[in-house]
Amino acid sequence: MPNQTPGHSHPAMPSPGITLGCDYNYEQWPEAVWHEDMALMRAAGIDLVAVNIFGWSSIEPQPGRYDFAALDQIMDLLHANGIRVNLGTGTASPPPWLTHRHPEVLPVTADGTTRFPGGRQAWCPSSPIFREHALALVEQVAHRYGDHPALAMWHVSNELGCHNALCYDDASAQAFREWLTRRYGDLDTLNRAWGTAFWSQRYADWAEIAPPRLALSVRNPAQLVDFHRFSSEALLEHYLCEADILRGHSSAPVTTNFMVTAHIRNLDYWKWAPAMDVIANDHYLDHRLQDPVAELSFAADLTRGLAGGRPWMLMEQATGAVNWQPYNLTKAPGQLQRNSLTHVARGADALCFFQWRASAQGAEKFHSAIVPHAGTQTAVWREVLELSATLDRLAEVGGSTVEADTAILFDWESWWATDTEARPSQGVRYLDQVHAAYRALRELGVTTDLVSPAADLSRYRAVVVPCLHMVRDRDATALSDFVHAGGHALVTFYSGIVDEHDRIRLGGYPGAFRDLLGVTVEEFVPLPPGAETTLDSGARATAWTELLHTTTAETVDRYTDGPLPGVAAVTRNRHGAGQAWYVATALDPADLRDVLRRAIRDAGVTACGPESDGTVEVVRRRGHDHRYTFVINHGDKDIEHHISGHELVADEPAGPVLRVPAGTVRVVRQEQPR
Amino acid sequence: MPNQTPGHSHPAMPSPGITLGCDYNYEQWPEAVWHEDMALMRAAGIDLVAVNIFGWSSIEPQPGRYDFAALDQIMDLLHANGIRVNLGTGTASPPPWLTHRHPEVLPVTADGTTRFPGGRQAWCPSSPIFREHALALVEQVAHRYGDHPALAMWHVSNELGCHNALCYDDASAQAFREWLTRRYGDLDTLNRAWGTAFWSQRYADWAEIAPPRLALSVRNPAQLVDFHRFSSEALLEHYLCEADILRGHSSAPVTTNFMVTAHIRNLDYWKWAPAMDVIANDHYLDHRLQDPVAELSFAADLTRGLAGGRPWMLMEQATGAVNWQPYNLTKAPGQLQRNSLTHVARGADALCFFQWRASAQGAEKFHSAIVPHAGTQTAVWREVLELSATLDRLAEVGGSTVEADTAILFDWESWWATDTEARPSQGVRYLDQVHAAYRALRELGVTTDLVSPAADLSRYRAVVVPCLHMVRDRDATALSDFVHAGGHALVTFYSGIVDEHDRIRLGGYPGAFRDLLGVTVEEFVPLPPGAETTLDSGARATAWTELLHTTTAETVDRYTDGPLPGVAAVTRNRHGAGQAWYVATALDPADLRDVLRRAIRDAGVTACGPESDGTVEVVRRRGHDHRYTFVINHGDKDIEHHISGHELVADEPAGPVLRVPAGTVRVVRQEQPR
Amino acid sequence: MPNQTPGHSHPAMPSPGITLGCDYNYEQWPEAVWHEDMALMRAAGIDLVAVNIFGWSSIEPQPGRYDFAALDQIMDLLHANGIRVNLGTGTASPPPWLTHRHPEVLPVTADGTTRFPGGRQAWCPSSPIFREHALALVEQVAHRYGDHPALAMWHVSNELGCHNALCYDDASAQAFREWLTRRYGDLDTLNRAWGTAFWSQRYADWAEIAPPRLALSVRNPAQLVDFHRFSSEALLEHYLCEADILRGHSSAPVTTNFMVTAHIRNLDYWKWAPAMDVIANDHYLDHRLQDPVAELSFAADLTRGLAGGRPWMLMEQATGAVNWQPYNLTKAPGQLQRNSLTHVARGADALCFFQWRASAQGAEKFHSAIVPHAGTQTAVWREVLELSATLDRLAEVGGSTVEADTAILFDWESWWATDTEARPSQGVRYLDQVHAAYRALRELGVTTDLVSPAADLSRYRAVVVPCLHMVRDRDATALSDFVHAGGHALVTFYSGIVDEHDRIRLGGYPGAFRDLLGVTVEEFVPLPPGAETTLDSGARATAWTELLHTTTAETVDRYTDGPLPGVAAVTRNRHGAGQAWYVATALDPADLRDVLRRAIRDAGVTACGPESDGTVEVVRRRGHDHRYTFVINHGDKDIEHHISGHELVADEPAGPVLRVPAGTVRVVRQEQPR
Repeated sequence: MPNQTPGHSHPAMPSPGITLGCDYNYEQWPEAVWHEDMALMRAAGIDLVAVNIFGWSSIEPQPGRYDFAALDQIMDLLHANGIRVNLGTGTASPPPWLTHRHPEVLPVTADGTTRFPGGRQAWCPSSPIFREHALALVEQVAHRYGDHPALAMWHVSNELGCHNALCYDDASAQAFREWLTRRYGDLDTLNRAWGTAFWSQRYADWAEIAPPRLALSVRNPAQLVDFHRFSSEALLEHYLCEADILRGHSSAPVTTNFMVTAHIRNLDYWKWAPAMDVIANDHYLDHRLQDPVAELSFAADLTRGLAGGRPWMLMEQATGAVNWQPYNLTKAPGQLQRNSLTHVARGADALCFFQWRASAQGAEKFHSAIVPHAGTQTAVWREVLELSATLDRLAEVGGSTVEADTAILFDWESWWATDTEARPSQGVRYLDQVHAAYRALRELGVTTDLVSPAADLSRYRAVVVPCLHMVRDRDATALSDFVHAGGHALVTFYSGIVDEHDRIRLGGYPGAFRDLLGVTVEEFVPLPPGAETTLDSGARATAWTELLHTTTAETVDRYTDGPLPGVAAVTRNRHGAGQAWYVATALDPADLRDVLRRAIRDAGVTACGPESDGTVEVVRRRGHDHRYTFVINHGDKDIEHHISGHELVADEPAGPVLRVPAGTVRVVRQEQPR
Repeated sequence: MPNQTPGHSHPAMPSPGITLGCDYNYEQWPEAVWHEDMALMRAAGIDLVAVNIFGWSSIEPQPGRYDFAALDQIMDLLHANGIRVNLGTGTASPPPWLTHRHPEVLPVTADGTTRFPGGRQAWCPSSPIFREHALALVEQVAHRYGDHPALAMWHVSNELGCHNALCYDDASAQAFREWLTRRYGDLDTLNRAWGTAFWSQRYADWAEIAPPRLALSVRNPAQLVDFHRFSSEALLEHYLCEADILRGHSSAPVTTNFMVTAHIRNLDYWKWAPAMDVIANDHYLDHRLQDPVAELSFAADLTRGLAGGRPWMLMEQATGAVNWQPYNLTKAPGQLQRNSLTHVARGADALCFFQWRASAQGAEKFHSAIVPHAGTQTAVWREVLELSATLDRLAEVGGSTVEADTAILFDWESWWATDTEARPSQGVRYLDQVHAAYRALRELGVTTDLVSPAADLSRYRAVVVPCLHMVRDRDATALSDFVHAGGHALVTFYSGIVDEHDRIRLGGYPGAFRDLLGVTVEEFVPLPPGAETTLDSGARATAWTELLHTTTAETVDRYTDGPLPGVAAVTRNRHGAGQAWYVATALDPADLRDVLRRAIRDAGVTACGPESDGTVEVVRRRGHDHRYTFVINHGDKDIEHHISGHELVADEPAGPVLRVPAGTVRVVRQEQPR
Repeated sequence: MPNQTPGHSHPAMPSPGITLGCDYNYEQWPEAVWHEDMALMRAAGIDLVAVNIFGWSSIEPQPGRYDFAALDQIMDLLHANGIRVNLGTGTASPPPWLTHRHPEVLPVTADGTTRFPGGRQAWCPSSPIFREHALALVEQVAHRYGDHPALAMWHVSNELGCHNALCYDDASAQAFREWLTRRYGDLDTLNRAWGTAFWSQRYADWAEIAPPRLALSVRNPAQLVDFHRFSSEALLEHYLCEADILRGHSSAPVTTNFMVTAHIRNLDYWKWAPAMDVIANDHYLDHRLQDPVAELSFAADLTRGLAGGRPWMLMEQATGAVNWQPYNLTKAPGQLQRNSLTHVARGADALCFFQWRASAQGAEKFHSAIVPHAGTQTAVWREVLELSATLDRLAEVGGSTVEADTAILFDWESWWATDTEARPSQGVRYLDQVHAAYRALRELGVTTDLVSPAADLSRYRAVVVPCLHMVRDRDATALSDFVHAGGHALVTFYSGIVDEHDRIRLGGYPGAFRDLLGVTVEEFVPLPPGAETTLDSGARATAWTELLHTTTAETVDRYTDGPLPGVAAVTRNRHGAGQAWYVATALDPADLRDVLRRAIRDAGVTACGPESDGTVEVVRRRGHDHRYTFVINHGDKDIEHHISGHELVADEPAGPVLRVPAGTVRVVRQEQPR
C-alpha cells in the first residue's frame, strides 16, 4: 500500500471534510416537489447529489432526440442551492426504444435464453450496438455539462455488472475470442492453458470457442475462470470508453460505484481500481449473512484496499431497509449513525444515500430513503439530520488515513476458482473462509487492511492468507520473501493449489506454499455436513481436513479423532525471525481466534481495540497533526475505553476513561506522536 | 350482496333440490361399458353428467372432419336414462393436429421458452388461430346439441387458466398492447401509471411494450399487475366468445368451472362472475396447506360470494385422493359426506364429482372416482350411494340462502400486488393473511361472507379487511362510509398501501385508511423468520410490525419487546357508533381470535355456532318458510348442539339437544321466524 | 440364470485370474511422463489399460485429418511393457470442430433449450450427423489397431447415456416416430396404448407425435415410458453400429462400461447386456445415499445379474474421492481393498480404476487416481500396490461363480413407471424400495441374485419382488408358476399395478398378482411425511398403506392404528408347497427384516453369513474344484467366522475359527462338495 501523505483530502473528493450526499431521481417527481426538495436538502446539509443515473429514457426519449430541459433546470437549481452534482452518464439502463429496435442488445444467460427488458441493466456488455448508442449519449451529456459550475464529479453508468456481468450471446462469444487471442496468441497455448486434452476439447480454430454456456456436465474450469476475467474486463472496457469521452470534455474526476459486498463477485476490482479517479462503493447490510455488521467493516476495509489506503466514498447506503432481500429489516434507532461512522472510521470521506426521496412507483418503491413515504415527521429524517451535524463536527477527520499493520490477501480470481462446479467440498466457499479470518481479527481488536496478493507486503507485520486457492508464482514468491524478511504469515487450507490457469501445482499440496509452510499434503479429506473433529487443544473443526505431513514445520495442534487422528492440523514453520503458520482445517470461530491471537502476538501486531465478541470496534485514522480514534459500540450496554483527548461527536474533552453509550460511536482526537 | 328471494331454486340450476353429478369421459371406454354405466348411474341417483370436456380430438379427429356418432349415442343414452347433460364445448385442450400445424398456438413462459403438447391446455389465450379453430368447433357442437332434450347446461372449456393463464408469446404481446391502449388511451398516461421514469423505462411507442418477460432484475410491479389483469380478461374474452355462440343456438344456461382454491390465483373471478348464468367451482382438498378443511369452507364461502349469495354448483370434487399433490391422501370413512355437506351448508345446490369412472390410462389415472379401479364392491361406491340418499332427504334445502352478517373483503388484485417480487417481507403472503382472518372467525362460530372490496357493505355488522394492500379510492371510501354509518371494520397490516396503479399512497401508511383507523405509520419493520414479539396482553406476534403512531385511535395493545417496545400494535378508532380496528402485526392464531372476538362482540355479530378449534361448524341457510341449520362435526368425538326441529339427514325429530356423532353432519329444519 | 461351467475364466476376460487395470489419459501428459508411467505400471502390476476414451479431438484434430502418432506410440509402449489394452473407440465426446460446424448435433433438453459443449457427451444420440462422423472415426481406429498385439478388448464410447440419454430435439423426434411406427404398426394401436382419448391427445398422423417435451401440466405417462424405452434403444443402436465396425476388423471382445448405480436410470441394461461380449460396470460410492456400502454390493449383484451370473469387469472405481458429489469423501485406510474385494466376492474378475494419474487440469482434476497429485509417496499408491499383491494371491478365484438361491426381481421399466410425474405418493420411489428389500436380505446374511422379471426363476428357492409397479402378463404368470411349483415369493406394495403400456390392471389392486397373493385392494392410502402406523406385531410402517381385503390369503400382521386399523398389512397365501407373501406397507428396516427372515426360513433359503447390521458380508464363489468364501468385515471390531480351509489373502491355513480383523477381507478356499 503506497504511503500517503496523511491529513490532506483526496484531490478527487467532491468536498473537504466528510461529504454527505444522495441519489436524486428527480424524474420521478413533478416540478413542485423539486423546489421543496431543495429546501429540505439544504436543511439536511446535503453536499453532493447524484442525478441522471437512470436518465436515458428521459433525456433521449426517442432515438437521437435529446431533451435536456429538466436536467438543465435541476443542475441549475442544485447549483443555486449550493449543492454539487455527481453527474450520471445516464447509460445504466437502455430505454425501451433501443432494446425494441435492437433486441440483439439483450443479455443471454448460460442456457441460451434471453433476459428481457422490464428490470434494469438489460444489455450485453459486449454489444457493439449498445456501446455505440451509450457513447453517443455520453458525448451529449459530457458536452453539455462538462463545465457546469455545479459539476463535482462524473458517475459512469451504475453498479456496472450487478446483473449483466456474465453474458453468453454471440456478441460476447466474439469478444471473448478476441480477448483470448490477445491473451494466448496462438491456439496451442490456449489448448495447453485450458487442458483441452481432457474430454476431447482440443480447439482446432478460434471460431470454435464460445462462452462456457450451460452443458450437460461439468464445464472446463479454466474456461470458466477465463470467462470471468474476460467478463470483468469487458465491462471495464465499457467504463473506459465512457470515461474517455468525459475526460475529453471535462476536468471533473470520473468514477463509478463498485459493489464490494457479499453477493456480488463478478468484477475483479483490483483491475478496475486504477481506472478510477476516486474509489466509490455501494454497501447495504445483508441480513442473509450470519454477521451483517462484520461484513460492513470487511467491505469498508476492502474498499479502502482498492483505494490504495486513501480515503474513499460510500456512494450508496440505505437509511433503513432495502427491498431486495427476502426479509428487509430496517435499522434500529442509532444504527444509521453507527453504521455510517463505521464507514468513516475505516476510511470513507463521503457518505451518500440511495436515495433522497422514497419512490412511489417502480421496483424499488419499498427501498428506504432520506425522505420516507411518510415525509419528514419521521425518525429517519431526524436521524439523517443528526448524522449531518455529526459529520460537520468530524470534518477535520477528512483526508486522514487508517492505521493497520496486518493485512489479509483477497482475490477475486481465487473466489472464482474456489467456488467452481466440481470440487472437493461444496461446504468450502471462498468468501466464508475470508470472512472467518476477518471476523477473528476484528474480534481480536486488530484493524486489517485487505490487499491484493500482488500488493507490497513490506509495511505489514502479519499477513493472513485465507483459502487463496489460485495463486500466481510471483505472488507466492512475494509471500515467501515477506516471511524470509521476518514477516509473519498465516495461511489457511485449500490455498496455493492451482496456478493462474487453474492447473494443479503437482507434487503435494499446497503446491505454491509447501516450502514456505514446511508441510506436504497427500490428499484432501473433507468432512460431511454435521461432522466435527476435535484437536489436541480441544479446538473443534468441521468441513475440511488434510492428510498432512510436516517437513520443516512444527506441529501446533493435531486431530484426536475423525478420519485423521494424530495428523497435524495447525503447524508453524520458522524462517529466521519470520514465521509461516498453516491452518489445515476449518476451525470453529473461537478456535480460529485462538490461533490467530498467538500468531499476531508473535508478529508483534498492534491491536488498537479490546478483544470482544465483535460488538466493540476501535479503529484509528491518522491525519497530519492528529490521530482520530473511533470507538464503536454496537452493543446494548455502555462501555469504557481508556483514552484521552478531545471527543468530536459530543464535542467535549475525553479521558482518561471514555464512556461510549450503548449503540453509539465516539471519536477522540489526539496529538499525532512523531 | 343483493337480497335474494329465498326458498326458490336458482333458475339456471340443472335440477330442483340438490343435484348430484359427475364428469363422464366416455371416450376412454368401450361401448359395452357405457351401458353398464347407465345402470350404475341410475343406481347412484346421478342427476347431471358432464361430457365432451376434452372431446376435441374425438369429435374433430382431423381438421374440419367432425365425428359426432359416439357423442350422439351418449347424449341419447343419458336422456333415455333420465340423466341431464352438462355439455362441454370440448375446447379445453387442442388436438395434436392443431398444435402440429400451428405451433405458434403453443404457450410461452416468462423466460421465452415454449411449453409443448403432452399435457393439457397447451394453448395461448390470445392466439387468434386457436380462437378461430375453437370457435368453429363450438359452432358445430352448439348447432348440433343446442336443443337436445338431455341438455341441461353448457360447460365452456374447462378450468380456464389452470395452467396457461399467463402467456408471454408475441400474440399475447400484441393483445396486451391493444388492451393497454384501451385502458390508458395515450402513452403519457401509461408512462405515469407505470412509473416508467424509474430505471429508464419510459415508452416512446406502443410497439415497445411487451409482457413482463423474465428480466435480470426485479420487474416493473405496475406492469406485472396490469399483465395479470390483461391475462384474466384475455381468457374471459375467450369464454365470452364461446358463450355467445352457444347462446345463439340454445337457451340452456352457460357457465364454466372456476377454480377457487389456494394454489390458483390468476383469474379475477369478480370480473368473471357476471358473465356466468350460474356459478360453478371445482374444489379439491389441498393437503399441502396447514388446515385443508378450513380452506374448503373458505373456498365455498368465496364461491357463494361470486354467486352474489345465490346457490352455486360444486362442479368438481374428488371421492377420495387426487393425483397431483406430492402426497395424495384419501378420505377417511364419512369424510366424503362431511365435505360434501359442508359445501351444501355454505350454499352449494349441486355436488358433482370428477369423475364417474377412474381412468385406466393417462396423467390422471390415479385420481379417485365414483367407480374406482376396483369397481363397485368398494367403500367409495357405497359412500356415494349414501350421499345420494342424503341429498334426496335434503332436497328442500335447495334454493335457500346462507345467513351471514359479517364479511371479509377479498381481492385478486391485492393478491397479485401483495405477492410481488420485491417487497418488505416475503414472509407476508396475501392468502395466508386472509386465511388467518377467516380461520379465526370460523373458529369463533361466525359465518362469513367473502365479498369484493367494491361490494355493498350495508347489510353487514362487521367487515374484516385482511392485508388489502391495493385498494381503489372508491372502495376505501366505501369502507369508511360503512364505519361512519355505524359499521365495525377490522383492518390488518399492509392494507391500503397502494392505489390501483400500485402507486404508494404517500404521507404515512396505511394511506387509504389513515383517517379511518386514526393511525399513521412511518415505516414497516418486518421481523426475520423465527423472531417473535410479545404484546402487553401476552399476545405473540411474528413476521411484521410497524412504527405506528395513533392520531385519533386508542391503543388496544402494544409491543413489550422486539424492535418497537411501547409502540401500538392493535388500535381502535371510534366514529360515532362505528369502530375501526387496526391490527398492525401478524398475531398468533389464538391471539388474532381474541382480538376478533372483541371486535365482533362490539359489532353485535351473530355467532351461530360455538367457539371451537375448528372441528365444529354451524351454518344456517334460510329458505322461504324454513331455516336449515347445518351442524358439522369434523372431530372424532360426538358433540351436542342445542336446537329443536326436524333433522333431515337421519329424518327424525331433533331437540332440545341434538347429538351429532363424530365425523357426521346434521341438518335441522326449523320454522322461519318472520 | 443359465448354469455356467464354473472354474473357467470368461472367454472375453482380458486376462486369467483377477485383472487389475486403469484408464490412462496419456494425452494429458508430456511424453516424458509416459515412460515414467510404464515403469510405475509394471511396479503396480497393472494388467490392462484403457486408452483413447476421450481421444477424438487428439486423433482427429481436424475433420478427416487423423493423427495416430501418439496413440501408436502408447500402444507399442504398453505392449513392450507387457500391458494389454482396452482400446476406446474415442467417440465419447465430439471435438469442438464437429459441434461448431454442426450445432444441430447438440443435445436439447425437455424445455427445448440446447446444451452446449464445454463438458462431455454434448451430442444427440439420434443425430445422423454425429453417427456418421463417429463411425468414420471408429472405422479408422478399428482398421489401424484391430490386430495390434496389445489389444485385449474394445471399449465403445464411454458411460453411454450418462448425461445425454434423453434428448428432445428434432432428430430425436424423427427417430422416436420411426421407433413408434415399428412398435405399434398403426396409429389406432398407438392411440389405444397411450390412452390418447384422455385430455384430447388422439393422434391423426404420425407426424404429430413428438418426444414428451416439457408441458404446462402432467405429461402422458405412457408416452414417457415409451420415450424411455426408445431413448435406451437409440443409444444401444449407436453401440451396435460401433461394435459392428469393430467386429469387422477385429476378433477382440467388445463392450462398453455400464453405470449400474443409484443416480443413473435411463438405460434398460437388460436389453443391452446381450450385446456385450463381457459385462463391464463403473461404480463409485455415493455418499449422498443412506447406506453407500450396501449400494456397492447391490450394484455388484445387479451387474452379475446382467452378466447372467458369469464373471464381470469393474471397469471404473476410484482409489479415493470423486469430484462430482457435493461432499467428496475419501476412503479410509483399508477401504480401497475392502471395497475392491467386495466386488470380487460378488463376481468381478477385473478391477479397474479411473484413472492412472490424477489430472492436473479439467473438470475432473479433483478426482482421485492411482498416482495422486502428490505422487507415489502416498498412502493411496501403497494401497494400490497392496491390492495388486492381494489380487495375485486370489488369482485362482477367477472364473468361479457366485452362489445364490434367492433372487430379487429388478426392472428399469418399473423404475420409469413408478417414479412418474403424477402418482399416489412421491414418498414412494422405486429404487428406495428395492434397496430396502436388498438391505434386509444382506443383513440377514443372504446372498441375492438380481434378475430381470423375465428371468428363469426355477433355480431359486425364494424370489423377492419389491415395488414391481409395471409388469407384463407373461412375467406375472411366470412368478405365479414359480410359486405353484413350490417356490416362495414375497411381493411388496405398489407391485403389479400397470401393464406394459402403463394401463391400470382393473378389478382391484394388485391386478397382476391378486390371485397369486390372495388379496384385493380397493384403494391406496398413502401416509403424509412424518406419519407412522403400528402393526399388531409392534412393527412400524410409514409412507404407504392399502385398503386391503384378503381373499385366500391369511393375515400375518395388521394395522392397529392410522387410517386403516384392523386392515391386513402383511399376508401370506399358500399354493401347495409354495407361498406368496404380500407386504402392503413400507415397514421400518428392522421390521421388514423380520418378515423376510420368516419368509426365507419357510423357503429354506441358505444364509451363508450371519445376521448383522450390515457390517459383515459373507459371499461364496464356486469354482470347478473349490469354493471360495469371502468374509468381509466393514466394522471397526475384529470378528470371528466358523470356517476351515486355506485363507488366500494372508496365505495361511484357516479354521476352525477364522479371525477377520476390523476393516479387512478374508477369502477361504475349501474343497468343492460334490
